[in-house]
Amino acid sequence: MAQGNQPSCDTRTRIMQASLRLLNKQGYHATGLSQILADAQVPKGSFYHYFDSKEQLAIELIQHYQNLLLERWRAMVDLNGPDCLAQLKRGLQSIVTDYNERPNEQLGCLLASLSGELAFASPFLRGAVQNAIAGICDQIEQDLSHAQRQGQVRDDIAASTLAQLFWCSWQGATLRMKITRSTAPLQEVGALLLDHLYRPLPSQAH
Amino acid sequence: MAQGNQPSCDTRTRIMQASLRLLNKQGYHATGLSQILADAQVPKGSFYHYFDSKEQLAIELIQHYQNLLLERWRAMVDLNGPDCLAQLKRGLQSIVTDYNERPNEQLGCLLASLSGELAFASPFLRGAVQNAIAGICDQIEQDLSHAQRQGQVRDDIAASTLAQLFWCSWQGATLRMKITRSTAPLQEVGALLLDHLYRPLPSQAH
Repeated sequence: MAQGNQPSCDTRTRIMQASLRLLNKQGYHATGLSQILADAQVPKGSFYHYFDSKEQLAIELIQHYQNLLLERWRAMVDLNGPDCLAQLKRGLQSIVTDYNERPNEQLGCLLASLSGELAFASPFLRGAVQNAIAGICDQIEQDLSHAQRQGQVRDDIAASTLAQLFWCSWQGATLRMKITRSTAPLQEVGALLLDHLYRPLPSQAH
Repeated sequence: MAQGNQPSCDTRTRIMQASLRLLNKQGYHATGLSQILADAQVPKGSFYHYFDSKEQLAIELIQHYQNLLLERWRAMVDLNGPDCLAQLKRGLQSIVTDYNERPNEQLGCLLASLSGELAFASPFLRGAVQNAIAGICDQIEQDLSHAQRQGQVRDDIAASTLAQLFWCSWQGATLRMKITRSTAPLQEVGALLLDHLYRPLPSQAH
């Protein structure tokens, strides 16, 4: 981050919030720095107190977004409870409810939106997206592993493998949500995986 | 389509090919008409012999892309054979091989790329993406339904439901391919679904 005077922390927050909204809505390449600054009501000079470039802003935004998702998830889902699977389903339902309550912000996941257009972006930007996804998949793996130990998820397939599929399916479902303007794809994917395909096989004794 | 003189069909093809490449690489909003025409080496006047606008070009491109995918798939996969599941796996492997042979064109699926940024696009453009996805999901459903009748895919869940999950997972995997520049996510999703989660349950008698 560029060093300088100490402008208000609100400025940085406003830049982050505006860029989250705009990058998610219209993509990285289509969003100019001037549009972000206009939306955040921040003069260009102030921007460089906080970030060296639009790319650096995007990298920090991706890390920030990952932290937001994980903090929110951990606050919702109590893995220490007796019914881990019910907690996971409650967490997913909460995400769906959140989308339903803000239909004009059915922007889906920033990581899905950015992945679609960053195949040829800089290694730093792609690396930031990869790290964020890896962090979230680690959390899903921990959750599913816990549910496996409780006998609520099949254990003939590694939790890491189930987590990767969960992530891919959920990402694909957020894309469909964006196109259909409906959260049904999210609900269907969550239900099919957790209520059916990931359930223990009849032969899995516990 | 706008009517006019009869310019060469190659011109239309060149416009479609350039727009497929550019929209897939950098997105709809970030791709200007002038860039498409420069890439296709077509003067602006000729463009309007074929299309009314960039949006109409994108709508026709999406329909064209869906037809391409389905024609290619049907040419590869022979559902009338005795081992439908092997045919499906061969078809998926062929898609993966194709990506591997052209690593600089790991652009993923146009529909996934566009879905990420079209949540607030016109209903016509979103409708074109929805129709294309519906057409492909119908094909996946037919394939899985056939495999169900052959006893190679579990039949306790409707083929349409399994098809929707397959599509979402594959789309999510193409996003990961774009970010990681590796086809491993596609191979893992295909194998986990077709070799494990979609396999008949032990209790499914045939």
